[in-house]
Amino acid sequence: MRVYAKAILPAGFSANAVASGLKKSGKLDLALFYSQVPAKASCKFTTNTILAAPLIVCKEHLQRNKRFRAVIVNSGNANCFTGKTGIADAQETARILAKALKIKKEAALVSSTGVIGKRLPMGIIKKAIPDLVSKLSPAGINKAKLGILTTDNFAKEISLIFKSGNKTVNICGVAKGAGMIAPNMATMLAFVMTDADISQKALDKALGMSVAKSFNCITVDGCMSTNDSVILLANGAAGNSLIDTGKNFKAFVSALEIVCLELAKMIVRDAEGATKFIQIKVEKAKNFQDARKVALSIANSNLFKTAVYGENPNFGRIAASVGASGVKVKEKDLKFKVSPLKKKDIFVGVSLGQGSSSATVFTSDLSPEYIKINAEYN
Amino acid sequence: MRVYAKAILPAGFSANAVASGLKKSGKLDLALFYSQVPAKASCKFTTNTILAAPLIVCKEHLQRNKRFRAVIVNSGNANCFTGKTGIADAQETARILAKALKIKKEAALVSSTGVIGKRLPMGIIKKAIPDLVSKLSPAGINKAKLGILTTDNFAKEISLIFKSGNKTVNICGVAKGAGMIAPNMATMLAFVMTDADISQKALDKALGMSVAKSFNCITVDGCMSTNDSVILLANGAAGNSLIDTGKNFKAFVSALEIVCLELAKMIVRDAEGATKFIQIKVEKAKNFQDARKVALSIANSNLFKTAVYGENPNFGRIAASVGASGVKVKEKDLKFKVSPLKKKDIFVGVSLGQGSSSATVFTSDLSPEYIKINAEYN
Repeated sequence: MRVYAKAILPAGFSANAVASGLKKSGKLDLALFYSQVPAKASCKFTTNTILAAPLIVCKEHLQRNKRFRAVIVNSGNANCFTGKTGIADAQETARILAKALKIKKEAALVSSTGVIGKRLPMGIIKKAIPDLVSKLSPAGINKAKLGILTTDNFAKEISLIFKSGNKTVNICGVAKGAGMIAPNMATMLAFVMTDADISQKALDKALGMSVAKSFNCITVDGCMSTNDSVILLANGAAGNSLIDTGKNFKAFVSALEIVCLELAKMIVRDAEGATKFIQIKVEKAKNFQDARKVALSIANSNLFKTAVYGENPNFGRIAASVGASGVKVKEKDLKFKVSPLKKKDIFVGVSLGQGSSSATVFTSDLSPEYIKINAEYN
Repeated sequence: MRVYAKAILPAGFSANAVASGLKKSGKLDLALFYSQVPAKASCKFTTNTILAAPLIVCKEHLQRNKRFRAVIVNSGNANCFTGKTGIADAQETARILAKALKIKKEAALVSSTGVIGKRLPMGIIKKAIPDLVSKLSPAGINKAKLGILTTDNFAKEISLIFKSGNKTVNICGVAKGAGMIAPNMATMLAFVMTDADISQKALDKALGMSVAKSFNCITVDGCMSTNDSVILLANGAAGNSLIDTGKNFKAFVSALEIVCLELAKMIVRDAEGATKFIQIKVEKAKNFQDARKVALSIANSNLFKTAVYGENPNFGRIAASVGASGVKVKEKDLKFKVSPLKKKDIFVGVSLGQGSSSATVFTSDLSPEYIKINAEYN
C-alpha cells in the first residue's frame, strides 16, 4: 500500500474547475469530477434536519438511479434555506451539466458550499459549464481540489494505491472545510473516487465504516452544517475481480479508512483560529458509541478548548465533560493522561475502566482568533 | 405581590458568613442558612454523572431524613473528583456543624463551589464553624449572599412577598454563578427559603415547575457543572393554612417561578466576558420540550454567539442550529425575528409553525474576553 500526499485520479476519472465569478475574489469556484464510465456511488449527508437544496436533489437522484457519471460542486454559495427555488436551481444545474456531458440528468450529482440563504446565480453557472466540461482531464484534479474550497488555508488531498487481488487499485480523495467553524461557509465536503470494481453493498458498508471513524469523529465547534456531504464514486476501471464481502474487502476498507481519516484530520488542522491540533482517545468503554460520545463531549467543551489554548492543564474540566456526556461512569474508574500543552499537537487519553472499546476524536482549541473571524464575517 | 431586589429572610430564618481562609483573597467564603424550626426541603441537582461529594451527601440526608435546619456552603473549593475522602469530608462538615447547632447531622445540608479535584481543607472549616454559628441573624443574609460567590461580579438576590389565604408569605432567594462559564468555578448554586407552610408534594411540584422554566433554561457555554444545586427550604413560620394542590398553590408557584427566573437571569447577566444578554423565544412548537431543545441548540451555538458579539445578523446560523437540534422542522414553516444587535439586550424569536407550545432560554454572547478568562485561569 502506498500513500501519496497528493490527489492522483484513479483510472477513468477526470476533473476540472473554473473561476465562474461566484467568488468575488476571482478564485476557482466551480469544480467538476467526471467518470468516463458509469460509476456506483455511496454517499453520506448531514443529519441536520434543515437540508441544503443540492442534498435534496442528490437524494432524489440516488433513489431514481444506480450509476453516476459526474459531480458538480460550486463554492461561494450554499444554496441552503432557499426554498423550492433553490431545489429548482440545483435540478437545473444538473440538467445543464448533463446536457453538456451528454449523460442523463439523474447521473449527475450536485454539491454546494458558501453563504446560506442566498439564491444561486444561475446565469453565472450556465455560462461557465461549457468551459468547465470542455477542459476535463486527469490533471484537472489540481484545479478541482481548489475550486471546492472556501475559507480553507490549504487544499486537502490524498491518494492511496494498493493491490486488490493481482490488480492495482487507487482511492483518491479531496475535501474542503476549515473545520466547520467558518460562519456561513460552514460546510465540510469530501469527494472520493476509486477505480475499484466493488459491489454496491460492499461500497456502502465500507463508506459507513470509514465515515464513522473519520468525518464523524472530528469537531471544531460542534456546529452541524446543512450541507455536509461525502460522495464516493467507484467506476471499476481498475479491472480487479469484484470486491464483495470476501478477503479483498478488508484491504479496500483499510485503504478507504485511511483516505477518509487523513482528509478529516486535514480539516481539523485547517480549523480557523486554531493554535492546537488535539487528539482525544477514549479507551476501555463498553462500546464504540459510548467512547465516541465521551470523546466528543470533551472535544466540544469550550472550557476544555480554552484550557488547551491557554496551555493550562485542567483535569477538572475533562472530568466534568466526561460526566456531562450522558455516559454513566464511576469517578474511581476514570484515568486521564494529557501530553505537554506547550506543543502544537496535543494528546488526551481517557480510560473509562468499563470495557474494551475505544474511539479517537480530533479537534482544535478555541482561540480569540476564532471569535474574531466569526464575529466579523459578512 | 411585592418584589424586592434584595434578600429579605422569611420568618424563622437567619444566616451568616465568615472569611475562613479558603479564599486566598480574604473574602467571605463560608456561608450558613439556618431555620429556627424544622423545614421541609426540595432540591434539584446536576444531571452530570460525575457528582461532587456534597451532592452525594445531600442526597443521602434527603433520603434518610424529612426535616432540615441548615445549609452550609463553602466557596473556593468544589470538593469534586475527590473520591471517598471527599465524601468523608462533606459528612464531617455536616457533623461538626450539627454539633455546633445542636441539631442532628442529617438535618444539615452541604454545598461547595470552587476548584475541582482538590481536597477540602478541613482544619480551616472546623476552625471557622463556631464563629459562623454564633453570629447567625436575619441581617446575616447580606454576608451569606456574598460568601457563596466565586468569580461573580455581583450578588444575585431577590425576595417576593405575597398573600396566601390571609397570611403574608415570603420567598427569598440568593444564587451564585458567573454563568457556568468560569473554569474550575463552574458551578451554579441557588438557595431559596420560604416561611410558607406547604405540603412536601406541593413543594416538590412547585420547584420542578419553576426550575424547568428558569435554571434549566439558561446556558452560557453548554458546560454542565458537577456541583449545580438548587436547595429550597420551607419552614411554615408564616402560619398560613397548609398549601397543597388547591388554589393557594397557584400563587405559591407563580411567586417561586419569579424568584427562580430572576435569579437565573442574573446569572446570565453576570456571564464572564459577555457583552450581550440574549433572550431566545421559540414559539409554535409541538410541546415545551421541543421548544426548549431548539432554543438551547441556538443558545449553545458558538457561531450564533459570535455573530451576536460581532453585531452581525445571520439567519443562516440560526436556521442551521434549529436543524441541528434534532427536532424535525420544515424550512417553509420557520419564521425568524431578531432585534437590532447594536443594543445590549437582544431578542431572538423563532416560530416553528407546528403547534402552540413555547419556551424561552437566556444566554450570553461569546467574546474574546471569555477565552482570555478561561485560558488564563489557574
